[in-house]
Amino acid sequence: MPNLIDGKQLANTIKEEIAIDVNKLRENGGKIPHLAAVLVGEDAASQVYVRNKVRSCEQVGFESTLIRKDSSTTEEELLEIVEELNNDPDIDGFIVQLPLPKHINEEKVTLAINPKKDVDGFHPANFGRMAQGLPAYLPATPFGIMQMLDRYNIEVEGKECVVLGRSNIVGTPISILLSRKARPGNATVSLCHSRTKDLKAHTLRADIIIAAIGIPEFVKGDMVKDGVVIIDVGINRVDDATAKRGYRLKGDVAFDEVAPKASFITPVPGGVGPMTVTSLLMNTLKACKGEIYGH
Amino acid sequence: MPNLIDGKQLANTIKEEIAIDVNKLRENGGKIPHLAAVLVGEDAASQVYVRNKVRSCEQVGFESTLIRKDSSTTEEELLEIVEELNNDPDIDGFIVQLPLPKHINEEKVTLAINPKKDVDGFHPANFGRMAQGLPAYLPATPFGIMQMLDRYNIEVEGKECVVLGRSNIVGTPISILLSRKARPGNATVSLCHSRTKDLKAHTLRADIIIAAIGIPEFVKGDMVKDGVVIIDVGINRVDDATAKRGYRLKGDVAFDEVAPKASFITPVPGGVGPMTVTSLLMNTLKACKGEIYGH
Repeated sequence: MPNLIDGKQLANTIKEEIAIDVNKLRENGGKIPHLAAVLVGEDAASQVYVRNKVRSCEQVGFESTLIRKDSSTTEEELLEIVEELNNDPDIDGFIVQLPLPKHINEEKVTLAINPKKDVDGFHPANFGRMAQGLPAYLPATPFGIMQMLDRYNIEVEGKECVVLGRSNIVGTPISILLSRKARPGNATVSLCHSRTKDLKAHTLRADIIIAAIGIPEFVKGDMVKDGVVIIDVGINRVDDATAKRGYRLKGDVAFDEVAPKASFITPVPGGVGPMTVTSLLMNTLKACKGEIYGH
Repeated sequence: MPNLIDGKQLANTIKEEIAIDVNKLRENGGKIPHLAAVLVGEDAASQVYVRNKVRSCEQVGFESTLIRKDSSTTEEELLEIVEELNNDPDIDGFIVQLPLPKHINEEKVTLAINPKKDVDGFHPANFGRMAQGLPAYLPATPFGIMQMLDRYNIEVEGKECVVLGRSNIVGTPISILLSRKARPGNATVSLCHSRTKDLKAHTLRADIIIAAIGIPEFVKGDMVKDGVVIIDVGINRVDDATAKRGYRLKGDVAFDEVAPKASFITPVPGGVGPMTVTSLLMNTLKACKGEIYGH
């Protein structure tokens, strides 16, 4: 059986490391990292995500501020909040939880965030810096994946990596990170998507597969070679009357078929998911220390 | 024999189209595009490049300003010039010719250019916008390649593209552009580089090869399949006592071996090279019209 990449445990380990760092800052009289989160509207999933982010801040000793606005908030009002957070010297970084209500232009809001405080790494200035190999806040999921590969000592250099899915928040940035001249990095990356003709030919030759297409159990056992490393980013709800909530969470990979052939594999849930909040905390710590843009 | 992609002729065609556009602007009393170029020091190649850019501006009816400073110019002085150009409403876009003298930090200067006037497309904000699929000034060489594929009606969607080389100015951005959900685009892209283990396996399965590694005649005839499309970005000087100047320009592809198997191929010189200035002109026209960032 393969080695399971335990995202939950790794996230806890990293949180403990961050807590130690924060304690040192505190002892030395330094500034304590402070993350703000803006939540607009009543989207149920968003409320869970934001609550989780704020709780994680508390766990590691960060200060946190949650700004809740109802769904009638105008774009102008939200942009004013963004501007206030941009200018508030006590806030090291902040996020505006997506999705936003439909009357608000998400792109406009994202672009209004000062890149120096953009700890989600969604602003084009951070995305571009990442792609050009400059210091940058990395987006949460790709950053989490890089941490997993690094901490599990999975060799990436010179490996054939196949990324499935080209979204702005996972597929495209992870394909860039894996091919960068860095460690982890230096992989040969093929970015596959809905228009790819012979996808199986790619997955079959892959040493490492990053699956981020949002189709439950898309990657089957006969699509991978022995010894493959599998990072499964998918979190898909699949109806299941026998499950307590009426559904089960499934990844983009058919775990039962693929796991026996894999050298490493992430489970769903408990794999990539828990790492995303950790990335946010790491970015906020970097923001507080001025590691990306200076002070 | 393959179809030759004539970059020189295509560049002229595009310049004629731009000239027609500029005439219309003039007739309608609109603003005439104005490009400024800053040249620091006496680098011989840079002088040729900048002269060529300014001459191209004249050809299409743009206004142009050449700012020459000697190599003793300080970083502070150069940053002041950049700031003046950022604030000059008559300048639609400008470039600072690289390389700069060693005492000047190129990254700092590039980052100081207002992304709205960054017609070289080197600023991370433009790079990130490009990668995220937002309107952006594209860097010259990738933009020129996209134009070639488009104007020669070379189908890219669903094709296997192999990019050789991962530089910030060619390999990385062209790999992003080719895999974007756009036209041309929607290709399956593999980004290969010095750490790639079985490069020949990649080039042999490629429908389209973009060679940008800077090694003369690296891609041999036995490395490609019949019908391949070849875009050769390399411009390498190879010593040759029988040549007038003592050298010949060679691409990254062994043209004589590869051409008989190719369906399309760019020559060197006269292929990708002439397209880069055209990209700069197109970006400057977009800047003048406010097509990327508005007015």
